[in-house]
Amino acid sequence: MVTSVDEHSLHSGTGWTPGYSAEMTTTSQPGQTAHDSRSGASHEAVEGWRATHEDVLREAAEALAARSYFSRYPDSPSPRVQGEGAAEAGRTAYEQRLDRSFDLSQPTTGESVGDEVSPYGPRLGVSYPRLDIGAALAAAREGMRSWRDAGPRTRAVACVEIIERLNARSFELGHAVMHTSGQPFVMAFQAGGPQAQDRALEAVVAGLVEQERIPSSARWEKPGRDAAVVMVKDYVCVPRGVALLIGCNTFPTWNAYPGLFASLVTGNAVIVKPHPRAVLPLAITVEVCQEVLAEAGFSPALVQLAAEGDGERLAADLALRPEVAIIDYTGGPGFGSWLEREAAAAGKAVFTEKAGVNTVVLDSADDLGAVVGNLAFSLTLYSGQMCTTPQNLYIPRGGIATPEGRVSVEEFAERLASAIGRLTGDDARAVEVLGATVNDVVRGNSARLGELAAEAGGEIVVSPRDVAHPAYPDAVVRTPAVVRLDVSREDVYTRELFGPVALLIVTDSTEQSLAQFVDTVREHGAMTASVYSTSEEVLAAAREAALDAGVALSENLTGQIFVNQTAAFSDFHGTGANPAANAAYTDAAFVAPRFRVVASRRHVPA
Amino acid sequence: MVTSVDEHSLHSGTGWTPGYSAEMTTTSQPGQTAHDSRSGASHEAVEGWRATHEDVLREAAEALAARSYFSRYPDSPSPRVQGEGAAEAGRTAYEQRLDRSFDLSQPTTGESVGDEVSPYGPRLGVSYPRLDIGAALAAAREGMRSWRDAGPRTRAVACVEIIERLNARSFELGHAVMHTSGQPFVMAFQAGGPQAQDRALEAVVAGLVEQERIPSSARWEKPGRDAAVVMVKDYVCVPRGVALLIGCNTFPTWNAYPGLFASLVTGNAVIVKPHPRAVLPLAITVEVCQEVLAEAGFSPALVQLAAEGDGERLAADLALRPEVAIIDYTGGPGFGSWLEREAAAAGKAVFTEKAGVNTVVLDSADDLGAVVGNLAFSLTLYSGQMCTTPQNLYIPRGGIATPEGRVSVEEFAERLASAIGRLTGDDARAVEVLGATVNDVVRGNSARLGELAAEAGGEIVVSPRDVAHPAYPDAVVRTPAVVRLDVSREDVYTRELFGPVALLIVTDSTEQSLAQFVDTVREHGAMTASVYSTSEEVLAAAREAALDAGVALSENLTGQIFVNQTAAFSDFHGTGANPAANAAYTDAAFVAPRFRVVASRRHVPA
Repeated sequence: MVTSVDEHSLHSGTGWTPGYSAEMTTTSQPGQTAHDSRSGASHEAVEGWRATHEDVLREAAEALAARSYFSRYPDSPSPRVQGEGAAEAGRTAYEQRLDRSFDLSQPTTGESVGDEVSPYGPRLGVSYPRLDIGAALAAAREGMRSWRDAGPRTRAVACVEIIERLNARSFELGHAVMHTSGQPFVMAFQAGGPQAQDRALEAVVAGLVEQERIPSSARWEKPGRDAAVVMVKDYVCVPRGVALLIGCNTFPTWNAYPGLFASLVTGNAVIVKPHPRAVLPLAITVEVCQEVLAEAGFSPALVQLAAEGDGERLAADLALRPEVAIIDYTGGPGFGSWLEREAAAAGKAVFTEKAGVNTVVLDSADDLGAVVGNLAFSLTLYSGQMCTTPQNLYIPRGGIATPEGRVSVEEFAERLASAIGRLTGDDARAVEVLGATVNDVVRGNSARLGELAAEAGGEIVVSPRDVAHPAYPDAVVRTPAVVRLDVSREDVYTRELFGPVALLIVTDSTEQSLAQFVDTVREHGAMTASVYSTSEEVLAAAREAALDAGVALSENLTGQIFVNQTAAFSDFHGTGANPAANAAYTDAAFVAPRFRVVASRRHVPA
Repeated sequence: MVTSVDEHSLHSGTGWTPGYSAEMTTTSQPGQTAHDSRSGASHEAVEGWRATHEDVLREAAEALAARSYFSRYPDSPSPRVQGEGAAEAGRTAYEQRLDRSFDLSQPTTGESVGDEVSPYGPRLGVSYPRLDIGAALAAAREGMRSWRDAGPRTRAVACVEIIERLNARSFELGHAVMHTSGQPFVMAFQAGGPQAQDRALEAVVAGLVEQERIPSSARWEKPGRDAAVVMVKDYVCVPRGVALLIGCNTFPTWNAYPGLFASLVTGNAVIVKPHPRAVLPLAITVEVCQEVLAEAGFSPALVQLAAEGDGERLAADLALRPEVAIIDYTGGPGFGSWLEREAAAAGKAVFTEKAGVNTVVLDSADDLGAVVGNLAFSLTLYSGQMCTTPQNLYIPRGGIATPEGRVSVEEFAERLASAIGRLTGDDARAVEVLGATVNDVVRGNSARLGELAAEAGGEIVVSPRDVAHPAYPDAVVRTPAVVRLDVSREDVYTRELFGPVALLIVTDSTEQSLAQFVDTVREHGAMTASVYSTSEEVLAAAREAALDAGVALSENLTGQIFVNQTAAFSDFHGTGANPAANAAYTDAAFVAPRFRVVASRRHVPA
């Protein structure tokens, strides 16, 4: 995959709709108290959490099976929802993290690391203990025994408790995500807090359900000529080994939690290796994990933080350690492909989310204003730095059919430019959607726009604008640009241009648009695709194309749902069916290979 | 893994108990007729099969979920069970295969291949069309579209029809398995016929259940401030690509069917690459698959046979083809490890069953006669050529506690020798359990016994005996031998000695036996383990050891269930948790990665 971004990330769950404020309902009726522990250890704290959390697990499991709407963690930052003073307390908690060392319950070499600089400008100044890898892996393995013996349900309850406590720290996490990823604050709060927590809960439930599909015991009665042959068989889920979680820069929690919690609930210990420029959100996460695990009577070494300085390549070292059996990765295709090759060859289960060329097929529209409004928001949100942001917009040379007649390519581009302009015309409001560019690669993609257009024989049809951040003068903020080019220039539009750059690709027909969509995604991957058409035939053809391409399709999004967003429990994030990602949040293939079943069988009297 | 066998195999399902004869019950009440086809294609034949097969699928799914006893295909060869004349007709069908060409509906280069020689002596003389690989892969991909569009349930019904027709040909298959693997006939009939068919049905059901956990459509209703946001989301299971099935010499059908049917039911086409010395059983299988697929209106190219001559290494070539996305392999660790490394690095889902050092821990017994009787049968059955046959028998230096006092190591060896002698004393009866040695590697392991004992500083405590086959003078048949050696000789007993050779390893204590068991299996793998003890403490410690080693445990088997046997729907065959195999028949991890889910979503009015 051709790309220019080294390690980047994906995106926000559906629900990143400013102003949404459903109230949180606390479930409090007592749940099951059945204890599936083999260890006989007490884990008293878990018993206290069980009553509420069993209900959460049940409701979430029902939603996951039905793929219906479910959210445990409301994502409105309003004090009516999050509590009076929560925002201020969270901000203070974040500020108290800065310019000091971050302590964790894990073996350290005595050195410390930490180079984080906010995309908004300030240096964070947090120093993290450097993990003693050998001791950490030994402690992780040691801790796994009682974690395994506690059984799936106890593990799930402890995981829910972790998530609940992360939820209580959503504002602190929001600031940490904002100042490592460059996301605007409200998005950082929502995607980095409650929406990430919903994805975490989804992974816990998926892992629990998968393990509980195996009965803990079965009576096997084989009819015989004289008497039946009867055996009792016990089945125990055992972890696969130590899991390595490799975090990304742009969505440090949202993209980390599915793998972290899927591994944890299935009995594995997890070494969390954050992106060197986005350590803090995962350090806070690890702190909460260690606190809950210790309270529950388990080893805090079940979740440890392996922070590193920029450029140390610790992930590659960890990935090939014999103790490591599972790897979750979000980031650029370069290292992702290396993991898929080298770590997979070493027998590790490797789950990746990399990148691709996300596609929009434009055919016809009932309400073109709503189309360009929705698209403009998708392109503008977080400066297009979501792995799900559309890049390739296919449009027929003859334009788009609308109730007012055909809208030409030029006019479409003008209307898209206007819509982006309306979203970003005011600097102070613009930065609340755009955030800040995360690194120099993204800035370069935007800065080299003229070269790109010239090289492609195309034209800049939506020009970017530099935005001055009213609070952070060092932040580099640019509005999205669009370059028009011809469908023949596959050499240009099959590259991933991460950040605020999209391509308007002029085709001979919608049929050609769909064919190019399939070819490009099959070869270069995509996390998302969408189509705009008033024709049932075209929509049916687009669905067929999406099946062939192996990418999820959004049809005619014109309201407050955006193609960049997927909803936990309902939308699969990624498919695993094209080169952009080899896994999906959260299907059975994402959780089932993380544990194994070991049985024992014996005769009993008939 | 140190081993001396290049491509070999596993074993027979529990139920290989001579004389068992439960009647087959034909379910005939009408099943569901809901049609999940997206294609609108008629597939009339499938509708005819649906009524009976939906019931089979439902019952089998219930058994799989409960892991209770279930068998669709009775394994007694009695005419009362299989029908009068079935045995004779099957034998005739087999004989008519010999010395002629085997035609299939698939593209061929015009050449033919085929070198099969029965381990019992006769040359089979069957010539198979050489597959035109390029054309075959293109046809396979082409055929997958309507197979995908038919949906999981239609695919499952067609798969059941295939299995039913294979069942009707169990005698023909039995002879084909006997004369390629060297299994004795009754075992070849049972393990190669009905028990393999039960494992096939298990894989179909596991794949169907896994796909049906995803609803085909969901209504997603997100509460909003004013009105709810409502979307309809459709989910389609799409295949991963072309699957490659690499068969083995010793259990050509039993070890092939799980992967073949798991891939097929999840929408993939399958290229069947049999072991060059065991082509016929899979050729018959492919013929049946093609016949049913064509009748159902699907492409016969969904299942194709890639036969090759000895030593052509076609599997390695096919494994790295870009069209191939899934690989199932049973055979020696050499090529298995190559696949786990090279094919996994190329992004393929690789499922292997290789080999290991299967273990018995001897501690104490209530009825030593029953213990040695059961063990003797396990060692004798098919001359120890099952991947599940015990190899390492750990015994404490002080002997085994029994109600009659401690039985010394020497006395135990003598009693085991006597029990093997009783099973194999009469040549004509002996060959019905021993079968024939499959190849020169196995013969070598047995022939070099003296060297092995000398090298290990041990002693032959159960001597082998050459058996003359009354019907096949060219067959090489030897009874199992046991070499006693000290626990310090890890260098010897961590090798796999495939065939009729076991090791009696003298330890200081049962505690040491269990510790060695864990270490050896973790490093070298095992398909099976068993323990004999009258002490609940020892049994508990053995269960813990089995969890740590990642291998299934059988406790105190003294009757008609043997450690080498696993029962479809109840016992997992392999665990994936030690180096002997990276997969298990049949857990979710074996089926879930074979397909992906592609969704499409759109708004609908609230």
